[in-house]
Amino acid sequence: MKIKGDLMTFRPDIKVLDATLRDGGLVNSFRFTDEFVRDLYLANIKAGIDYMEFGYKASKELFNVDDYGKWKFCNDDDIRAVVGENNTDLKISIMADVGRCDYKNDIIPRSESPIDMIRVACYIHQIPTAIQMIEDAHNKGYETTCNIMAVSTVSESQLTQALEILCQSPVDGVYIVDSYGSFYPLNTRELTETYLSIAEKYGKYIGIHAHNNQQLAFANTMEALTLGASIADATMNGMGRGAGNCMTELLLSFLRNPKFNIYPVIQFVQKHMTVLRKECVWGYDLPYLLTGTLNQHPRDAIEFINNGREDYVEFYKTLLEKM
Amino acid sequence: MKIKGDLMTFRPDIKVLDATLRDGGLVNSFRFTDEFVRDLYLANIKAGIDYMEFGYKASKELFNVDDYGKWKFCNDDDIRAVVGENNTDLKISIMADVGRCDYKNDIIPRSESPIDMIRVACYIHQIPTAIQMIEDAHNKGYETTCNIMAVSTVSESQLTQALEILCQSPVDGVYIVDSYGSFYPLNTRELTETYLSIAEKYGKYIGIHAHNNQQLAFANTMEALTLGASIADATMNGMGRGAGNCMTELLLSFLRNPKFNIYPVIQFVQKHMTVLRKECVWGYDLPYLLTGTLNQHPRDAIEFINNGREDYVEFYKTLLEKM
Repeated sequence: MKIKGDLMTFRPDIKVLDATLRDGGLVNSFRFTDEFVRDLYLANIKAGIDYMEFGYKASKELFNVDDYGKWKFCNDDDIRAVVGENNTDLKISIMADVGRCDYKNDIIPRSESPIDMIRVACYIHQIPTAIQMIEDAHNKGYETTCNIMAVSTVSESQLTQALEILCQSPVDGVYIVDSYGSFYPLNTRELTETYLSIAEKYGKYIGIHAHNNQQLAFANTMEALTLGASIADATMNGMGRGAGNCMTELLLSFLRNPKFNIYPVIQFVQKHMTVLRKECVWGYDLPYLLTGTLNQHPRDAIEFINNGREDYVEFYKTLLEKM
Repeated sequence: MKIKGDLMTFRPDIKVLDATLRDGGLVNSFRFTDEFVRDLYLANIKAGIDYMEFGYKASKELFNVDDYGKWKFCNDDDIRAVVGENNTDLKISIMADVGRCDYKNDIIPRSESPIDMIRVACYIHQIPTAIQMIEDAHNKGYETTCNIMAVSTVSESQLTQALEILCQSPVDGVYIVDSYGSFYPLNTRELTETYLSIAEKYGKYIGIHAHNNQQLAFANTMEALTLGASIADATMNGMGRGAGNCMTELLLSFLRNPKFNIYPVIQFVQKHMTVLRKECVWGYDLPYLLTGTLNQHPRDAIEFINNGREDYVEFYKTLLEKM
């Protein structure tokens, strides 16, 4: 597959989405301080980040508000308290999970909201509902993406069919999501080719959301971008569920567009992430490699690590029994 | 460039070299317990590893024996005490640095030594001496490789010239060495092409030795192997100078040759590396990204981390002043 761009020029189409609050929120139940969120917003603006995802729009029918920090629910007023009128180049996104979001009520028209983009996350069998949500958000004036999760467990024919249907909806972009952190760059290459070949027919862009189970989140992100993906998710210090995500500092050190600036990212990591890393745990560790390489959900590895276990051999045996 | 092999078959030419004692020794001054070394030897055999590097053959004129553990010097007797007659498929290598090794005296004929392979490490301007050392080792009956360090600071024309000269020597293999951890997979791709195009003319193989400054040691190793490199260095849990190396556990989880077995690696990591990680520090951290992305030697980052500093912003400013 032909490479788009090189290491001496830049592709202006490449955008970065900061998912620290959203994927990182899965680590600390979305309990970020207001100072953290405000500083993150300012750092993203200075760093030239294109989108900042504040969290989920989770249903308050399904989830108890007291069990989580506010970014599990992303009330428009809470976002507004941070960004005001957001007269900046930074756009605001939230994630809406199929089946976990009262989107008809909780997502108000874009003209009345600080939010710019709704990212709909679904599993492959939920595509019909995802499309309804995309249409709803699109009709309310939002940019939309669809993030099909766990595609490493999906057959090629199913995936192709889903992408064909999806790309005929009003969705603006479709994400390659490596939920289990099981992709090698070779897999990312094939998937980028598949996604692009369908998305380009319908004028949609594609994105990449990687996990670091095999220390490949950055490598897979570069691979997808190099082959034509136009938006990449990253989080400060890689904070995200389990092995975490592609680190913003790594991604910005790679991108050549002069609008990106790593300096405010380093400042933010120094001020906030060094503290947070002492309070909660994320990032590459052997158990994540094992679930990743076996193409399993990381939940067992997360539990193993949260329990302070180091008996990797027993853990590996348990995983093998689940194959 | 065309890919060699795929994810469903395996290339029997691909070999793995365990460099835990050698590159890891740079972290703890080669002070490994005898139990560690013995268990590592046994784990490597069980895991199907092809070569185990015991350390350096450093000159006792230049280095004080009391300042280091024994694997800085790799006396044949010390290796013999671990491996006996080594009636296994695992071959033994040591590294000999140009200018730091009394190779004429300290490297005895292979027929009298437990060592199978001498890896000569040099900078580009030391190629003539490296070739003398390679000839010496070759004449004594050893397999040889040449590891040209810091090639990220070398011009293409110099590199091509060095490779042409080197490949006309009796050397068996030539290594791509990412000393500063500054390569992207795109760089590795270009270098693999350059090295292979010359090495193949002369019937030599090429190898890859990666560092993890940008969390790309595994990705770069896969990239080089995928394009035709035949030997890869790895270390248990990535133990190695600064950001460390490609982790053996990651590499074995990727390789498809049935002779490789990740299980003894997991056992070894559980028994020894979890302990060692509490005694000394290696592995990816932000300062290594910064030296890597700026193509600088990691020494400043190592010092920064060993001093327990977290003022990344100041560190970054200091590095920029050195550009």
